[in-house]
Amino acid sequence: MTTVGILGGGQLARMLALSGAPLGLRFLVLDSAPDACAAQFAPMLQADYRDQAALASFADQVDVATFDFENVPAESAEWLAARVPVFPSPRALAVAQDRMAEKSLFRELGIPVPEFAAVDSREGLAAALAKVGTPCILKTRRLGYDGKGQFRIKSPADADAAWEALGAQAATVGLILEGFVAFQRELSVVAARGRDGELRAWPLTENWHESGILAASLAPAQADDALQAQALAAARKVAEALDYVGVFALELFLRDGVLLANEMAPRVHNSGHWTIEGAETSQFENHLRAVLGLPLGSTRAVGHSVMLNWIGAMPAALPVLSEAGGHWHDYGKSSREGRKVGHATLRADSTAELADALERVGRALGREAQVAPVITRLR
Amino acid sequence: MTTVGILGGGQLARMLALSGAPLGLRFLVLDSAPDACAAQFAPMLQADYRDQAALASFADQVDVATFDFENVPAESAEWLAARVPVFPSPRALAVAQDRMAEKSLFRELGIPVPEFAAVDSREGLAAALAKVGTPCILKTRRLGYDGKGQFRIKSPADADAAWEALGAQAATVGLILEGFVAFQRELSVVAARGRDGELRAWPLTENWHESGILAASLAPAQADDALQAQALAAARKVAEALDYVGVFALELFLRDGVLLANEMAPRVHNSGHWTIEGAETSQFENHLRAVLGLPLGSTRAVGHSVMLNWIGAMPAALPVLSEAGGHWHDYGKSSREGRKVGHATLRADSTAELADALERVGRALGREAQVAPVITRLR
Ligand SMILES: Nc1ncnc2c1ncn2[C@@H]1O[C@H](COP(=O)(O)OP(=O)(O)OP(=O)(O)O)[C@@H](O)[C@H]1O
Ligand SMILES: Nc1ncnc2c1ncn2[C@@H]1O[C@H](COP(=O)(O)OP(=O)(O)OP(=O)(O)O)[C@@H](O)[C@H]1O
Repeated sequence: MTTVGILGGGQLARMLALSGAPLGLRFLVLDSAPDACAAQFAPMLQADYRDQAALASFADQVDVATFDFENVPAESAEWLAARVPVFPSPRALAVAQDRMAEKSLFRELGIPVPEFAAVDSREGLAAALAKVGTPCILKTRRLGYDGKGQFRIKSPADADAAWEALGAQAATVGLILEGFVAFQRELSVVAARGRDGELRAWPLTENWHESGILAASLAPAQADDALQAQALAAARKVAEALDYVGVFALELFLRDGVLLANEMAPRVHNSGHWTIEGAETSQFENHLRAVLGLPLGSTRAVGHSVMLNWIGAMPAALPVLSEAGGHWHDYGKSSREGRKVGHATLRADSTAELADALERVGRALGREAQVAPVITRLR
Repeated sequence: MTTVGILGGGQLARMLALSGAPLGLRFLVLDSAPDACAAQFAPMLQADYRDQAALASFADQVDVATFDFENVPAESAEWLAARVPVFPSPRALAVAQDRMAEKSLFRELGIPVPEFAAVDSREGLAAALAKVGTPCILKTRRLGYDGKGQFRIKSPADADAAWEALGAQAATVGLILEGFVAFQRELSVVAARGRDGELRAWPLTENWHESGILAASLAPAQADDALQAQALAAARKVAEALDYVGVFALELFLRDGVLLANEMAPRVHNSGHWTIEGAETSQFENHLRAVLGLPLGSTRAVGHSVMLNWIGAMPAALPVLSEAGGHWHDYGKSSREGRKVGHATLRADSTAELADALERVGRALGREAQVAPVITRLR
């Protein structure tokens, strides 16, 4: 009997547990929230990530540990890694936690990136602005997610407002200034790397964000072989440089035929949720296979899929459940503004059928805006 | 928040819970075994089905109840049904629990059945033998499963031995004598019927048994439209006669182009396990949709699938995990002779690829005999 420990008990841990059950695995989740939604289907240890007694008990009960949440304190990950195998490694996690470290790595590896510069003071911001130019975005280096901790700078005159908003965090989580990319499309490559170094990527996914939060994904993205190869090569370089084990996502901006790396997520990723129904093996199962040293499953797509994120509150399920290829995912969370509470995946054999289904669902739910760009791409 | 109660906590309850989680459902399992495998992923009330205090607490905690195990005492099902919606209904359950009642219903509905006669004494057996003829099988009317409680009679001279083996049960669970069907193939139709009477069936499945236990299933079965229609018509008649709600299976013998009904299972069924990967919607999800009054999901097959049952102990997972379309299901049970401990599903786009994969897996696991008849059918 193998028990997998998961740091963090949100929807990613929940979907990991649900997809790992058929492999005969048991799970133990560590989370400080008493109502963490993974706990509905897996035993949970309720404690802070820094609680050493809890970490010790966690380590005692699991055979291997992994993450639902990438911002686990590096010291906790390292403390744990000294006692039990942890994948991805604390080092990989540390790089992915820090926008400055990951962008520097991308650049070192020859992967195109937006202009960027570290910022640690008001004067530093001025210097960075001179280097990066406008428009640009000031971001926290660490602990940002779903577009939080970001300030858009349209012209140098916005610098004071940006510093006002985020300056205090320069000393805590650090700041980075990034050139604003006038991208044509946002894409991501989700891939799994095994303990033996084997890498398998799912087809490229196109993503649409609303207010910094993922709203919809289309997979396979409409991308030619050259673009697929460009993305896969970048993913492979990063994974090999970090000796990465498990699933990760590389978020990319497509500008004039070139893919610029935005960031990497050192875990299963929202833009890979479509793989549950839309691929032979899901990102969740392959992450578990990878961390356990099992052979990776096939990442081929089965038909065409669109994933729609539900943010804040669950909409009515009926329109999705009434579609032939409609699949519902309610994370069992309470409603809260900006919170990812669920998603739906629509799957079809052809892009035309998929566009039709999407149109019906968008209309029935009054979410025309969310589905419109995807329909445009499909038609 | 909707909680579904499941009477019985075996692999069927486990797979119901795993497939119902994405619908935002919670589960509560009732089982007398402390190590019931569904309890690894759902809360469990450990108690006997006849324990009224436990049943009362169960009823208090659930919004709707259903079954993993069809031999729940009729009184317990009825007691519960007076307090909370129960699907399928205790009446449907009662008919399906009794081979005599179900065969009589099939005959009434004009569905072909093997010869049969009730047996309640040694003289009754002689009379039944005269009516049914040999070869035939003496079976317990109730509580049989996986071929248990059966005695094959080749000639009238075996009657004493058959009575010796099963006679004592005439007074408890009842006996039935059935003509032995020299079938060419065994098939099953798995279907879901909604609260609103909508019926959706998955494609016909062909099944192979070893010592009375299901060994392998192939879906879609190689069957022409006429045979599909014959099976579907029989399933529909039975479901409508019982005002059935949920998933059920009708097990059929194909003899000279005619489908004879063997028995019905008033629950998700082993011959429908392939639907997890091999159909747009699994039998588990559609059972939950049905009992909750939600629209049924599409039952179309996605590619070709073979399900292999693991009986007694789990074999090595590697050969299956190494196949592109290989999916593993370990129920988290301990080994025990004759026990269903897991299954694997192999899926492929073509029957030729499926046969190749099956051959590799059969060889790697030393289970050539289990896969041979399926390969023969596929080639
Ligand atoms: N340099 C940039 N140029 C243009 N758009 C950007 C840039 N950085 C971020 N964005 C937009 O904001 C979105 C979220 O940004 P980013 O991925 O940096 O934030 P995050 O908080 O880490 O989000 P997530 O949780 O989705 O990973 C991006 O997907 C993109 O739409
Ligand atoms: N009348 C019959 N003629 C020929 N074979 C039969 C007959 N009855 C049963 N068998 C064989 O035995 C197998 C199991 O029989 P049956 O379905 O009656 O038993 P069960 O214990 O209810 O099994 P399960 O748990 O699989 O439903 C059948 O699938 C078939 O292979």
